[in-house]
Amino acid sequence: MPIPDTLGGRRIPVAILGATGAVGQTFVRLLEGHPWFEVIELAASERSAGRPYGEAARWIEGQMPERLRHVVVLPCDPTAVSAPIVFSALDSGVAGAVEPAFAAAGRLVFSNAKNYRMAPDVPLLIPEVNWEQVGLLARQRRERGWSGGLITNANCSVTVAALALAPLHHAFGVERVFAATMQAVSGAGYPGVPSLDILGNAIPYIADEEPKIEAELRKLLGRVQEDAVVEPAIRVSAHANRVPVEHGHTICLSVGFVRRPSPEDVVEALRAWRGPEGLAGYLEACPTAPARPIVVTDAPDRPQPRRDVHAGRGMAVTVGRVREDTLLDVKLVAMGHNTVRGAAGGSILNAELCVLGAPPMPAGLLAGITGAAGAHAP
Amino acid sequence: MPIPDTLGGRRIPVAILGATGAVGQTFVRLLEGHPWFEVIELAASERSAGRPYGEAARWIEGQMPERLRHVVVLPCDPTAVSAPIVFSALDSGVAGAVEPAFAAAGRLVFSNAKNYRMAPDVPLLIPEVNWEQVGLLARQRRERGWSGGLITNANCSVTVAALALAPLHHAFGVERVFAATMQAVSGAGYPGVPSLDILGNAIPYIADEEPKIEAELRKLLGRVQEDAVVEPAIRVSAHANRVPVEHGHTICLSVGFVRRPSPEDVVEALRAWRGPEGLAGYLEACPTAPARPIVVTDAPDRPQPRRDVHAGRGMAVTVGRVREDTLLDVKLVAMGHNTVRGAAGGSILNAELCVLGAPPMPAGLLAGITGAAGAHAP
Amino acid sequence: MPIPDTLGGRRIPVAILGATGAVGQTFVRLLEGHPWFEVIELAASERSAGRPYGEAARWIEGQMPERLRHVVVLPCDPTAVSAPIVFSALDSGVAGAVEPAFAAAGRLVFSNAKNYRMAPDVPLLIPEVNWEQVGLLARQRRERGWSGGLITNANCSVTVAALALAPLHHAFGVERVFAATMQAVSGAGYPGVPSLDILGNAIPYIADEEPKIEAELRKLLGRVQEDAVVEPAIRVSAHANRVPVEHGHTICLSVGFVRRPSPEDVVEALRAWRGPEGLAGYLEACPTAPARPIVVTDAPDRPQPRRDVHAGRGMAVTVGRVREDTLLDVKLVAMGHNTVRGAAGGSILNAELCVLGAPPMPAGLLAGITGAAGAHAP
Amino acid sequence: MPIPDTLGGRRIPVAILGATGAVGQTFVRLLEGHPWFEVIELAASERSAGRPYGEAARWIEGQMPERLRHVVVLPCDPTAVSAPIVFSALDSGVAGAVEPAFAAAGRLVFSNAKNYRMAPDVPLLIPEVNWEQVGLLARQRRERGWSGGLITNANCSVTVAALALAPLHHAFGVERVFAATMQAVSGAGYPGVPSLDILGNAIPYIADEEPKIEAELRKLLGRVQEDAVVEPAIRVSAHANRVPVEHGHTICLSVGFVRRPSPEDVVEALRAWRGPEGLAGYLEACPTAPARPIVVTDAPDRPQPRRDVHAGRGMAVTVGRVREDTLLDVKLVAMGHNTVRGAAGGSILNAELCVLGAPPMPAGLLAGITGAAGAHAP
Repeated sequence: MPIPDTLGGRRIPVAILGATGAVGQTFVRLLEGHPWFEVIELAASERSAGRPYGEAARWIEGQMPERLRHVVVLPCDPTAVSAPIVFSALDSGVAGAVEPAFAAAGRLVFSNAKNYRMAPDVPLLIPEVNWEQVGLLARQRRERGWSGGLITNANCSVTVAALALAPLHHAFGVERVFAATMQAVSGAGYPGVPSLDILGNAIPYIADEEPKIEAELRKLLGRVQEDAVVEPAIRVSAHANRVPVEHGHTICLSVGFVRRPSPEDVVEALRAWRGPEGLAGYLEACPTAPARPIVVTDAPDRPQPRRDVHAGRGMAVTVGRVREDTLLDVKLVAMGHNTVRGAAGGSILNAELCVLGAPPMPAGLLAGITGAAGAHAP
Repeated sequence: MPIPDTLGGRRIPVAILGATGAVGQTFVRLLEGHPWFEVIELAASERSAGRPYGEAARWIEGQMPERLRHVVVLPCDPTAVSAPIVFSALDSGVAGAVEPAFAAAGRLVFSNAKNYRMAPDVPLLIPEVNWEQVGLLARQRRERGWSGGLITNANCSVTVAALALAPLHHAFGVERVFAATMQAVSGAGYPGVPSLDILGNAIPYIADEEPKIEAELRKLLGRVQEDAVVEPAIRVSAHANRVPVEHGHTICLSVGFVRRPSPEDVVEALRAWRGPEGLAGYLEACPTAPARPIVVTDAPDRPQPRRDVHAGRGMAVTVGRVREDTLLDVKLVAMGHNTVRGAAGGSILNAELCVLGAPPMPAGLLAGITGAAGAHAP
Repeated sequence: MPIPDTLGGRRIPVAILGATGAVGQTFVRLLEGHPWFEVIELAASERSAGRPYGEAARWIEGQMPERLRHVVVLPCDPTAVSAPIVFSALDSGVAGAVEPAFAAAGRLVFSNAKNYRMAPDVPLLIPEVNWEQVGLLARQRRERGWSGGLITNANCSVTVAALALAPLHHAFGVERVFAATMQAVSGAGYPGVPSLDILGNAIPYIADEEPKIEAELRKLLGRVQEDAVVEPAIRVSAHANRVPVEHGHTICLSVGFVRRPSPEDVVEALRAWRGPEGLAGYLEACPTAPARPIVVTDAPDRPQPRRDVHAGRGMAVTVGRVREDTLLDVKLVAMGHNTVRGAAGGSILNAELCVLGAPPMPAGLLAGITGAAGAHAP
Repeated sequence: MPIPDTLGGRRIPVAILGATGAVGQTFVRLLEGHPWFEVIELAASERSAGRPYGEAARWIEGQMPERLRHVVVLPCDPTAVSAPIVFSALDSGVAGAVEPAFAAAGRLVFSNAKNYRMAPDVPLLIPEVNWEQVGLLARQRRERGWSGGLITNANCSVTVAALALAPLHHAFGVERVFAATMQAVSGAGYPGVPSLDILGNAIPYIADEEPKIEAELRKLLGRVQEDAVVEPAIRVSAHANRVPVEHGHTICLSVGFVRRPSPEDVVEALRAWRGPEGLAGYLEACPTAPARPIVVTDAPDRPQPRRDVHAGRGMAVTVGRVREDTLLDVKLVAMGHNTVRGAAGGSILNAELCVLGAPPMPAGLLAGITGAAGAHAP
């Protein structure tokens, strides 16, 4: 994966907002050694700003990259942060004000917060599902007068469901979805879920999660028409649960379709699926894209979070147990990595495709931001 | 809870078949100090027979009762075992032959195995749900020529669901059920689930569990007419999952009804429910019956297995998160103790009601077996 | 366990300081239905004061007692709290100022904080180990001018070690102790240890724990001479570890003695031990005292926290694996309940013995406080 | 890491005995894509022989390599297995007879079983600790008349301790060691530890583990003189515990030395250590050797199994918490991957050094076995 020609041999400087938290740290890990992006700035809350990253962040997985230990954490302010591409792991409490400030200041912001996901001019992107939503950036700039832009990721559990359902929606028309999740503790950030709450336990509640799943799934599976996402009339019933798993959200799905497929039809559709037309070539060029976004397993007792969460280096969703449903049409189980595909890794893949200028990325937007020469087909 | 008059001041001698396994041990624990029953015999497989119980059983919870340590384990054979009441914790691999042999030999057998649950002349009993099925014993004796009888417990997860749904079926008519379970490892017995399979993991599969849930729920909620259970036309879609929880099966339910209730109606029906007419007085007299078989919780994040599994000393099912469903009518979460209410405790409660002769327990059946004076109203 | 005559038929009103935290909740649970004490006041930090207890406390285990849900939480101030006996579950950050204020205001304070444990005039009490330290209260009142008093509990892990070592110290003279702990998460309070830190993990560090174990063990095993604790010259090397266990601290001990015993001698000393002379009668009258403070197990793989933590309703320490040591004399494993025996339950037992006036409890001290008639032998 | 010249451009065919078990699977995973070795044969017990590997093995981690799914499992018999290098993951129950049969048949066997570890003519190898023991192979061939040879790995927990202690023994002379372990469940194989035994629990007992630690540590740290290992007079007291951790054995160590070092001296000795003189060049050429066999951490709460187990791709031991001991001289904590460094990975590293002919590997031994041209210095 050489650096795209557009970049003239240089890596693009990027910043991470909310760099001390769990998702922020995942950005740091995934971007360490990234061939196209170079993390030059780490920003976080007032409490952390001004302190060395090694002190401000309580590192959760493995070892903090040595070179970042002494980097001084910046405030989350576009006047303090210079990078043209900004990955935001901010909590919704602060993202609402901070992210638009960066977009207004000419930065391209890739957000994991919920604040703007459902805004009609903001792309809610999973590239293999709905890359066309990137075209909303043109409307966004026009309406908001921003010189930069804001692209969002979906909620971590709905990301897993949407990847599994997109090929089926395309092939058979999803109408009704019953979704019961078993979600990993890392989805709640750090310190997040107290061990006394979850050791040897299951909690049948995650604040605000069920409405997010129900709403975001429709926007994710929608089609763009005249600068707007037209949402399909899918009814979703979600049951969100927390279980003592470190990483990996598992979702039990019962699905009803417009055109009833057999379980074999479903497996075939999942295996045959290649994502949006014309995007495959761009995806192949992306360092973070998995070989296959969906891995179908035949094992009767898979997917399992601990055993399958690293499929495609955390970027593939594993689907299994495809079988007939007695109430709707087909039952299946989907599982994916919530902090990689469902958060930081998803943002990075979005950014990679923007750098490649995969259409309908508005021509020149990133060039205007980074000084790169502009989009080109792979 | 004095010994019922029918017993003439003596405790009834009982035996446990499969006494060395996980459910067998739960029988031992729950019957220790029972006011009406006295465990006089422990039986198990060939491998264990002839050895002291303290050696044959690897004790799983707390300490083995001292007095049983040196009791010699018997073979599972009615010529070796004398007790008139027999609690069976046998695996389905051996229960199929052994349990009828005991029933034919004049014993009243309370079984936890799946083998005979769906037989048309065998009660599948949860007293608060369907005590009337005990009347099938008359047909059973007639058709099979047994001098004893065989009563079964339902599968541990469906027991939890059935207790939660029975009041709602009675009030509003259950038609469709989505059920996604998160089941405890003790449901798989001992040694059961290897730790390498389940530590920090969730397994979206339990062999044969989903069909059992779908089939048994209908028989449990059926009505007895002319010596047969007439099953309601309920369609059930089950997703069975194993999670790293010690005890307590949690079930997420979406339910569709004949007469659509509001969530408030559902809560009221659950709270008002008193079980079958005429049974309340008998239940009150039973040492193992909980004060309330269903505990409704208002907490937004309950029931939870570790925190609620001991409600009603393991005999109550806790129900919470009653809310509107977007696909069917109402969503809720039910949780109960799988080895107490869902296995050994359920059998013991069945036996207690038989001892009391709660109608339609066939008159004289137990008296013929135990020499007790016969049924009497409380 | 009738109410002692000294109380004239009334239960003593007690208050809990720090009632919203994990140890505070354990006090509430253990005192619910206590025959001698009645919780009349719950106090906590500024943040909680003024709110109903049901809102202020996030209840961790089982269900909050219904009658306390609407009790308004008080500030931790002796002018706001009236009860003569005060159980303190305060953090060391606030205990340092608050507990003396209560003692000065004439209350008898039973503290779980570390602040005053090592003060020469403050009893560090485990009754079965060193009840004689209660006599320090006379010096404490004299020197500090308090009309009340302050009694402390030891650190939760050292409590387990001290109970196991006391009989051995008495019989053979402990000189050297190697202690490696595996401590439960409840020892860190709530929210305490984040699940991302401890799920499937072990942490070989607990802040300040090792020095506490090394220092407190000596005071606990010391003898009182002329109003001071004379500490034995025991050298202790502690390794403190956190493991994913809910309740129960396990301690691997290698012990060197003045008079080298065999493992059989050790087992015999543990089994024969009855605690301080003259205290047995008082202990038998205490509702919270276990039948035996030490349970010795022969099983090769016990004690285990999940299986043995409830021994003596959490008040007994289970000891096992007594065997020769290659470096010192004898190795063994001790395990006890950290929030019951190691915290709230220990305080309550201390209070019960004070109520009974077990000597050398200074005569009249509690009577002066509660208006009870004074000490009397059981 | 090019294929060594000795191999003439070909990879060496290797076989795995006990390929279906947990350690056998780890061999498969680690050898997949190995630059020098090619797994051509998988052998296992009678029960598995003749069946495709994909059926015979219940795969524990990630996905089974596709190409091995259909490989037919062979019996553990040198007439059925042709590979000159044999990795044995056999249980001690069968290793005793099978491994010598392979060695007698001219194969070089790398064993993980305990049977021959303490035999005076069998190397018990951790290369960075005691590579010189490989020279025992000459005596072994001479005395046993084998045309092949047998090399053993140490027990998984003692491997971690030995790596941490070797530099300290070399620098300061280890005399006394307290070792309290917290061992992962994967150390017990599959199905191994039942989840009902270990969920939320700690077990202070692992059968036979403590004597193995005490005995093997001395042989590991011994020096070879005249074809025999002269063991140092180190006294070791081991406490072995099982905890609910997937991979990674953690060991708390208190160490007494001939020449008392400060904690700083210990850290320096660990950091400066480069293993046996003359071996460094060979190690650098080995694909499986970690950059540094010991990683020293300054973090106050590390090493931790879940966070540090992958250091050096599972081949490095992480050491931390180096501090003064009150009983002996210095305390520290060591943690390493039990199935990689402590089992399969250790064997593979041993084999790599044999292929390189690192002295004192007997000249020509491997050449005689594999047909390779013989040893050469890197």
